Amino acid sequence: MADVILVLNAGSSSIKFSAFDVAGGALDLAAHGQVEGLFSSPRFVAFNAKGEKTGEHAWAEGTKLEHADAILHLVAFLRGRAAGHSLVGMGHRVVHGGARFTKPVLTNDEVLDELETLTPLAPLHQPHNLKPIRIIAERNPGLPQVACFDTAFHATQAPLAQAFALPESITKQGVKRYGFHGLSYEYIASALPGIAPDAAKGRTVVAHLGNGASLCAMHAGKSVASTMGFTAVDGLMMGTRSGNIDPGVILYMLDELGMNARDIEDVLYRKSGLLGVSGISGDMRALLASSDERARFAIDLYVYRIGRELGSMGAALQGLDAIVFTAGIGEHSKEIRQRVCEQAAWWGIELDAQANDRGDPRISTASSKVSAWVIPTNEELMIARHTLALIEGASA
Amino acid sequence: MADVILVLNAGSSSIKFSAFDVAGGALDLAAHGQVEGLFSSPRFVAFNAKGEKTGEHAWAEGTKLEHADAILHLVAFLRGRAAGHSLVGMGHRVVHGGARFTKPVLTNDEVLDELETLTPLAPLHQPHNLKPIRIIAERNPGLPQVACFDTAFHATQAPLAQAFALPESITKQGVKRYGFHGLSYEYIASALPGIAPDAAKGRTVVAHLGNGASLCAMHAGKSVASTMGFTAVDGLMMGTRSGNIDPGVILYMLDELGMNARDIEDVLYRKSGLLGVSGISGDMRALLASSDERARFAIDLYVYRIGRELGSMGAALQGLDAIVFTAGIGEHSKEIRQRVCEQAAWWGIELDAQANDRGDPRISTASSKVSAWVIPTNEELMIARHTLALIEGASA
Repeated sequence: MADVILVLNAGSSSIKFSAFDVAGGALDLAAHGQVEGLFSSPRFVAFNAKGEKTGEHAWAEGTKLEHADAILHLVAFLRGRAAGHSLVGMGHRVVHGGARFTKPVLTNDEVLDELETLTPLAPLHQPHNLKPIRIIAERNPGLPQVACFDTAFHATQAPLAQAFALPESITKQGVKRYGFHGLSYEYIASALPGIAPDAAKGRTVVAHLGNGASLCAMHAGKSVASTMGFTAVDGLMMGTRSGNIDPGVILYMLDELGMNARDIEDVLYRKSGLLGVSGISGDMRALLASSDERARFAIDLYVYRIGRELGSMGAALQGLDAIVFTAGIGEHSKEIRQRVCEQAAWWGIELDAQANDRGDPRISTASSKVSAWVIPTNEELMIARHTLALIEGASA
Repeated sequence: MADVILVLNAGSSSIKFSAFDVAGGALDLAAHGQVEGLFSSPRFVAFNAKGEKTGEHAWAEGTKLEHADAILHLVAFLRGRAAGHSLVGMGHRVVHGGARFTKPVLTNDEVLDELETLTPLAPLHQPHNLKPIRIIAERNPGLPQVACFDTAFHATQAPLAQAFALPESITKQGVKRYGFHGLSYEYIASALPGIAPDAAKGRTVVAHLGNGASLCAMHAGKSVASTMGFTAVDGLMMGTRSGNIDPGVILYMLDELGMNARDIEDVLYRKSGLLGVSGISGDMRALLASSDERARFAIDLYVYRIGRELGSMGAALQGLDAIVFTAGIGEHSKEIRQRVCEQAAWWGIELDAQANDRGDPRISTASSKVSAWVIPTNEELMIARHTLALIEGASA
């Protein structure tokens, strides 16, 4: 009977899943998919490892599907297709581990209670990340469930890299630069020694350029600094998020534009970035395909801001040996990779245009002083690995 | 009869002044001083060019001295000591020139009305900067008065350097990175060719480290980028200002800490920075003299943040040829200069410790790849020069 580990990534209106077969210590993706539109028009879709659709279901428009129902549907689907398989553990992506959880943890009531106290630090994500763990623990209390944190990989950063210059009355509440996308960075750090041994040992900036985007400065595979800070809105310009802005702009929005906290949150998280600047789309592909002047400016600004933050990351590392592109835009947009590398030519990055067009792992020339790489990220596999390790540790 | 130009720098509770003799096109400082504590315990003090006290006056504790009265006192004092001198113009420091005023301007009613519309962009400074111009124009309508802007020097920056990734509904209100300390940077740019010709032509970062602090990336003497943005609270950690923080922290202060806009402004502008982090003082000298662990951490963070932002400035310049220290801490703290240069050693800065101890203009070794300099700034002289030039232009 084959063992299966199920990985869940639950948001406010969707639950993504990946099922991995445990085959003698290795983890093979068996199925993946999602339930989305939970409270508007729920749709379920599943694929096998080859990307072939193996299941789908749509609920009536206007159906409000609770997270619990979505999870039950998901588990029933997987059970039906996996006769002879045994679910041995579940891994969950949880955005915030706070100061205490600097590595993945087997959950129990005490851990979940503590993780719930972190909700004020990530009000838009933390409650949704935790909900499925409670739901499953209730129905299947014996199943090991592991929480993996987006913040944990950055726990190696020095206090100076994490500190804001704010008074203790604020910082003692836990206000510091946690950094996010940690599971992605951890996966890249785990893959680097096999792909780019010098980058694994050296001063490397990983550019996670997806719908969210951040840079991580790594030295010998450990996080030294990141562009995301206390929340996932800081740092780079993103699809719909502003990235770095003067805190005085927020005061101006409050005082002069008559906006309240919810208005401001809506602008910073959902109406800024590529979408806000272009006025057209938050999708880089749409902007690259557009001939509109505002689309061009939005892309220019996206690349420019990466260049500026790359300087800040390089300073944190006191120099630069390699840059790695990952996540949606990083893995798939040769135009953006080319432009970022051209702008960073002064660091000593020399792009190999053919390798970049092909999407080779190494996209810099052999003589390039700073090497450049494309490595697909795999946060789900990282979560499955942690889950397997903690299950085996617990039963050892 | 000698001509005199009077320079005023008016804030909410103080007016600083410098009087320059116009001697055949040259400007010689004749007197300087201030009226401070306008609405609490007003005190006036004046010095001659040698720094000898030439006048002082204290009003009764609790006196509320209006700006107009302070200016009348000031002018009467100067008249009394300058028989045979003729006031030919006044120059004023005005923090914000907005999008229209990208160089100094002779003021009139229309200009002042327009400058008043910029008050929402700098509510703490703009009204106080403009008040003396109105007061003097009323009493002496024929006297040329010139407004010089802290933002103007940065008007050469590319739109990409100035843009926030916010929607047009916000940016069309004038929300962009203006940059400040422009009169200081302009003075340094004017002094560089005579002191450091290569730095004047090359990629140079000027570190204005005073009570406020910012970096300016200059290429061939023109501003390319700056750490201060929309307001004077962004960028570097300062005496009591936070510098760069995640905009999400402001939402957290609003939502979770129950703070309002005024509370937040008070924390960011007056309770953060060196003061907030150390819990001891916002004065670098006091912290350097302290053996308290929190003082040490505050200084470490101050230096670290300069290093990170120097990386961002270097990226804007695509490399670095020189760094210039100026303003209070930059001119007088050899410890801070040394630590900034040591942290920036990876750029190729090699400090000449003896030259730094002496406070020589050049504090890097002859073989240093990136040169380092100390140049005292002189914003008042810069304002006097602009004033003289516009008066002469107007009468030509």
